[in-house]
Amino acid sequence: MLTDIDSLVDRLAEGLDPSDIRTDADTRSEHARDSAPFCEVGDPAIVVFPRSTAQVQHVMRTASRMNVPVVPQGAQTGLAGAGAASEGCVVMNLREMNRILAVDPANRTAAVEPGVTTRELKEAASAAGLAYPPDPVSFNDCTIGGNIATGAGGVCCVKYGVTADYVRKMTVVLADGSLMSMGADTVKNVAGINLMQLFIGSEGTLGIVVEATVALRPLPTDALGLLAQFPSTSSAGAAVAAIVAAGHTPSAMELMDATATGAVSELGHPDLVDASATCLIVESDAPTKEEDVRAMAALCEESGASRVTVGSDSDTAERLLNARRMVPLALREKAMSISPTAVSFIEDVAVPRTNLAQLIDEIEAVSERRGVWIATIGHAGDGNLHPIVVFDAEDPGQNRAAQAAYDDIMSAGLRLGGTITGEHGVGTLKKEWLADQVDPLELAFMKGVKRMFDPQGILNPGKVL
Amino acid sequence: MLTDIDSLVDRLAEGLDPSDIRTDADTRSEHARDSAPFCEVGDPAIVVFPRSTAQVQHVMRTASRMNVPVVPQGAQTGLAGAGAASEGCVVMNLREMNRILAVDPANRTAAVEPGVTTRELKEAASAAGLAYPPDPVSFNDCTIGGNIATGAGGVCCVKYGVTADYVRKMTVVLADGSLMSMGADTVKNVAGINLMQLFIGSEGTLGIVVEATVALRPLPTDALGLLAQFPSTSSAGAAVAAIVAAGHTPSAMELMDATATGAVSELGHPDLVDASATCLIVESDAPTKEEDVRAMAALCEESGASRVTVGSDSDTAERLLNARRMVPLALREKAMSISPTAVSFIEDVAVPRTNLAQLIDEIEAVSERRGVWIATIGHAGDGNLHPIVVFDAEDPGQNRAAQAAYDDIMSAGLRLGGTITGEHGVGTLKKEWLADQVDPLELAFMKGVKRMFDPQGILNPGKVL
Repeated sequence: MLTDIDSLVDRLAEGLDPSDIRTDADTRSEHARDSAPFCEVGDPAIVVFPRSTAQVQHVMRTASRMNVPVVPQGAQTGLAGAGAASEGCVVMNLREMNRILAVDPANRTAAVEPGVTTRELKEAASAAGLAYPPDPVSFNDCTIGGNIATGAGGVCCVKYGVTADYVRKMTVVLADGSLMSMGADTVKNVAGINLMQLFIGSEGTLGIVVEATVALRPLPTDALGLLAQFPSTSSAGAAVAAIVAAGHTPSAMELMDATATGAVSELGHPDLVDASATCLIVESDAPTKEEDVRAMAALCEESGASRVTVGSDSDTAERLLNARRMVPLALREKAMSISPTAVSFIEDVAVPRTNLAQLIDEIEAVSERRGVWIATIGHAGDGNLHPIVVFDAEDPGQNRAAQAAYDDIMSAGLRLGGTITGEHGVGTLKKEWLADQVDPLELAFMKGVKRMFDPQGILNPGKVL
Repeated sequence: MLTDIDSLVDRLAEGLDPSDIRTDADTRSEHARDSAPFCEVGDPAIVVFPRSTAQVQHVMRTASRMNVPVVPQGAQTGLAGAGAASEGCVVMNLREMNRILAVDPANRTAAVEPGVTTRELKEAASAAGLAYPPDPVSFNDCTIGGNIATGAGGVCCVKYGVTADYVRKMTVVLADGSLMSMGADTVKNVAGINLMQLFIGSEGTLGIVVEATVALRPLPTDALGLLAQFPSTSSAGAAVAAIVAAGHTPSAMELMDATATGAVSELGHPDLVDASATCLIVESDAPTKEEDVRAMAALCEESGASRVTVGSDSDTAERLLNARRMVPLALREKAMSISPTAVSFIEDVAVPRTNLAQLIDEIEAVSERRGVWIATIGHAGDGNLHPIVVFDAEDPGQNRAAQAAYDDIMSAGLRLGGTITGEHGVGTLKKEWLADQVDPLELAFMKGVKRMFDPQGILNPGKVL
């Protein structure tokens, strides 16, 4: 084994700077996983940090010749385990390919390397008077390569869509090191069969994105918003339905269940008066935002809200949305209160919007049945929920209970006509669930696509399929 | 051959009503082509009109057992020849599968069979207070199955996107008659590799859509608009750029070159005072439409418009947009004036928005060089142009000149960083051009996808690839 690694390092060094090829235990350990719990993680043999497309090609050519698995990795913020190392693999971390290649305001596009963070792209767009909307919670750190690999979403999606909607053009390195371009520089393109969308959300199993051109939009104005507190999930669900039925297009529509509200309320938030409320935070960045927010506030009241706070300026709206942003901190506090070894695990499930309230109720029932603490937040306008399970990872009983709760939530989502993942991906965590959602024939063809692009099966093996 | 056809008819009759299996010369001739000129057309052996998914499956099972090519067909409005029969094939016309299965206002979706026309879907959505935006010019007749097969667009796309953006879920019958479902009922879904987008725009080469669930949107209010007349394409192009740069999101942004303007002007239109102007028609359906239209009118004037007419109410806006809608009639008149056997042929090419004015100028140069009459209209906001060539199809010289002009326009589009088709598809017409646009490796994988889904090569053979 050792000789193999030495010989692999030697071959990699023919194309990469030796300092970008790491075999030390610290680097290997740092790059062994992403941010998903529960998933099997192996010890990578080598971690490489390519700095150019040619270097990515060299790594893949070398790996395919030596039949070594390669796990592509970005900021390691993934929540489904697609970035977790397999035993003896080469982890290819793309953070060093982080140049913004072009911002074209007249065509409203930007061309970037995969290691550019979502924040950096947003800032570059903003400097040109434009916006790149997709905003996964980890946008400060996560990379565009990872966003494309997972098909990432965020708070904005209810109005502005997901990562897949923004990719115009893409260059990938395939398993054998060859380079392939897809897409076009035009707004519309229907020339041939659309292979590009295969790669978006394929979690590094089909190829490695080395360059992407994304669409940008006009910069929206600051949003106004409201925070509504409801005595029940059903009344909050009714408000979501009423807002949609009235034809509103909010720029954010976030929900916090009573447990999440309680946790944030313990930290203290000036507007969260009822710690047991289900909260809905709705924003509008439309030119008519004042009247939109007033109308949506009225709909919340009609749906049974016990209290509605309207942000009459963007600072107040910011403060209201902050209740949602405080959730991670509140959960860390919650975890600490459970045990020093407690962790929080964020789930991702989506159902048709009309089944949202029922899913929240089912998650509450799961929490009670399994005896685990679960707070649910989510993108209500998309029917996309993130139940967050907090449990002591060192306690075998709690670990089992958390896993059982996770399984129950997946089942409930599918039973309610939903999907096992709206925006985080399948990774290693949901592989077994995929067969419960998709048509067996479709699954067989997904595997056929994988074989077509990676006949040796060296690209992120064991992920997704 | 005759025996084969008889035996094929017998087998088809095991699953279809005999009256839905037609071999008469009239039916065969009526269903031999779509609306594309220049393409090779064969005489189909049989035309079938299945009425259910099971019948589509029966046709495909029969065809694959007997190794007979099948050409799926809708309203025959296609402009690239994907619906043209090949010699001895079975044409499967899906117009009889035309039920609207469900409209779900709370989830903003509709489920339809493939033979539903775009107009019928729009009306069903509208009856539920919602909109299905995609609006190809043929929307009165063209079917959703055809829209999905071609990845159809329209006037609305500049603000509301294309057909591919609206498909949530799809069931297809594959070449061997098996049934496969893809997608989900949720707004977001990243479970597994996205095979559904392969089928959108694949022009019937991978499978036959038998059911689709599409997203609907809130019904926009009536648009206001303006008609600006420019002394040159470059000043019209500057106006497009200025409107985009100012962050406007028009709901339509249509362009007519001087030749198209002249043709409409001959029919008579109250607002077209200068028959040699390049015209830009811009609409807004935003809540701020009054001020948007005023601001965009000012930008047109600053860019050098010789005259700007603002539609101060929706009736006037309608009248202005009518200038664009009069183009087909004006072209029929133009064709008649050339010869009783003259036809008009609508092209489809798209470039990055910044190259739009240059492409229009190049098309004018092509018209002069080749000695053919070409009027250009297009979706300016998307950089998507439709040059329309009017020529006498019976005159060999004009036929050759028209084909040469077509080739020149494709070349110019590609040279300007564009695509050979923004929304009409490749069909048979642009097959040879596809290799000039896409990466050879991508083309090889497109063929791999085709082989994977249709190893016998019986589904719409010779189209696209």
